[in-house]
Amino acid sequence: MRSFDIPQIDSAAVEAAAVRQRTLTKPPGSLGRLEDIACRLAGIQGSTLPTIENKWIVIAAADHGVTRDSVSAYPQEVTAQMVLNFLSGGAAINVLARHCGARLMVVDAGICEPVEGGGDSRFHGNDGEENGNDGGPRLVAKRVGNGTASFAREPAMTREQAELSISNGVEVAEDLANRGAHLVAGGDMGIGNTSSASAICAAMTGTDPSRVTGRGAGLDDAGLERKIAVIRRGLELHKPDPADPVGVLAAIGGFEIGFLAGLMLGLAERRVVIALDGFIVTSAALIAHALNPRVVDYMFACHLSVEPGHRVALDQLGLEPLLDLKMGLGEGSGAAIGMTIIDAAARLHSGMATFDEAAVSGRNEATP
Amino acid sequence: MRSFDIPQIDSAAVEAAAVRQRTLTKPPGSLGRLEDIACRLAGIQGSTLPTIENKWIVIAAADHGVTRDSVSAYPQEVTAQMVLNFLSGGAAINVLARHCGARLMVVDAGICEPVEGGGDSRFHGNDGEENGNDGGPRLVAKRVGNGTASFAREPAMTREQAELSISNGVEVAEDLANRGAHLVAGGDMGIGNTSSASAICAAMTGTDPSRVTGRGAGLDDAGLERKIAVIRRGLELHKPDPADPVGVLAAIGGFEIGFLAGLMLGLAERRVVIALDGFIVTSAALIAHALNPRVVDYMFACHLSVEPGHRVALDQLGLEPLLDLKMGLGEGSGAAIGMTIIDAAARLHSGMATFDEAAVSGRNEATP
Repeated sequence: MRSFDIPQIDSAAVEAAAVRQRTLTKPPGSLGRLEDIACRLAGIQGSTLPTIENKWIVIAAADHGVTRDSVSAYPQEVTAQMVLNFLSGGAAINVLARHCGARLMVVDAGICEPVEGGGDSRFHGNDGEENGNDGGPRLVAKRVGNGTASFAREPAMTREQAELSISNGVEVAEDLANRGAHLVAGGDMGIGNTSSASAICAAMTGTDPSRVTGRGAGLDDAGLERKIAVIRRGLELHKPDPADPVGVLAAIGGFEIGFLAGLMLGLAERRVVIALDGFIVTSAALIAHALNPRVVDYMFACHLSVEPGHRVALDQLGLEPLLDLKMGLGEGSGAAIGMTIIDAAARLHSGMATFDEAAVSGRNEATP
Repeated sequence: MRSFDIPQIDSAAVEAAAVRQRTLTKPPGSLGRLEDIACRLAGIQGSTLPTIENKWIVIAAADHGVTRDSVSAYPQEVTAQMVLNFLSGGAAINVLARHCGARLMVVDAGICEPVEGGGDSRFHGNDGEENGNDGGPRLVAKRVGNGTASFAREPAMTREQAELSISNGVEVAEDLANRGAHLVAGGDMGIGNTSSASAICAAMTGTDPSRVTGRGAGLDDAGLERKIAVIRRGLELHKPDPADPVGVLAAIGGFEIGFLAGLMLGLAERRVVIALDGFIVTSAALIAHALNPRVVDYMFACHLSVEPGHRVALDQLGLEPLLDLKMGLGEGSGAAIGMTIIDAAARLHSGMATFDEAAVSGRNEATP
């Protein structure tokens, strides 16, 4: 695996943005986290007035052999069915992409069988509206295999497949950067993928599987117990080493998780802002972080998922989520809502008048 | 004061919306609070498919005599200066109104001197774009007086003024309802108004002023101590009775707070959804709630302010905020961001495909 060359945040731009914030017509600090967001955006883009206009959501879909060990409330064919739903515009993320003004790309990272319309590696669909995706989302085939093997019995994929999945994500990141993307969220679709994410979270943070495993798409108590047992078995079988993140991905990962890790690394290399979604994408962020910890400087944690492992993973990354709406859908849905907040922060930073411009008096010299 | 006739939420529409949520292409409950929002919107509008298109933010501005007792970090003239900033489009709420697609109205509820352009009671300015306020926000004069008296020394206003401020709010609510408003946020501007809000919060919830008084626009420790002492003096002087909310408003309130209470009561009477902003607006909600508790069924608490009294007031109303971004600006800024979430919930509810429409398989019959 090649190394990732992620630039440092531009600390002079961060400071210049903080100076500008203090001149805007509001009490200092009164926009709270929106001010911090604006300053970090400035650092990422290396500009006192950062721009968030060209937004994308990239959903990576793949299948998981571990579903054969019965860890999901839904049948495996739902992965491909939901991809078709994304392409026809009926899923939550279609609505939310329009809402937040992002274009949508759907990537087949390794579904069991190729989805109709996703059979070659060229872009499909129209570009979509500037502020939406009414023209239909893109579908990109970056298939690494016909779904993974069950990590409860054997490695989920080969090391070569793990590296390829990461490289595919980097390639799409570079394409988006070349198209001028300012803000990109990854999203996921894959029946069974919370099992893989929980296993990765346990391995990368040294946490017991019982603390980072949740009900996914709706398991009952018995299903949850079985899921924890399957994850425990996989970890005992492979003994994944957190110092070897590609090895962890190969042993217990998913093709979409590798793709998403590569996507984030590629975005950070090109100074593109990352809107971090929920548990699956954050498990990919753990892999990316282990490959180059600086990738986290480019991330905004958009929401806290109901999956219990999400907080553990975010703590490992040192990120505090913007939203806690008790969501647990994936698809980039939490990131899409968070993108509206990141967008608001950028707009306030560049669009507000200063005290001088508006002829508004500043603070009293001293509080008498 | 007339009584307020607020209809009950339509529980059949709530139930029909909940049924629809279970047919949408996502695991049940996976959109978390967005699902609850959609169902309550259905109940408010009495429709299985609620609509959030016509959005308004109404900022009420007024001055506070208590600033003479030195409880703000900013001079009183900033109230009028900020109103001019709203009218010329340079304030945070201008940026945020455009961001969330709301039109903006600015109300002079009793600034010390009339602001140029706000001297009569007709609407000023253009209507603004359908999705913004680029044509300039409206300014409406609903002046009850030239600022309040200092509640630390005498009643802030007469009972007649308190009733007039509430009636003015109701009048604007009716106007907005007639214009087809679906979602309205109140906002505030008034140097010194956190003192009034803290006094109201203390009186209406029976909480010691030290627990519900914060730094407002940026007081230091000594300023905060003085502010608490001023509030304590006012409460001891007037002994406001929470069973008489109009009397509380007259003793320790503000003209914009009365206006905002009336606005919310009038909106609820007309089944218009209310996006609740921060501490000042929520202090007005406490007054409205005491006049008719059903008004709360129409409110969504958008954010948690850094003002310590805000959580106390929200608890009294039984509301849980959607956002906690450490904001404390007022102007409706927190509500504007919350509106994007309410909007997203409505769009998901009506815009997503059902399992049948998308030919996506449902849950496994039984988790094996």
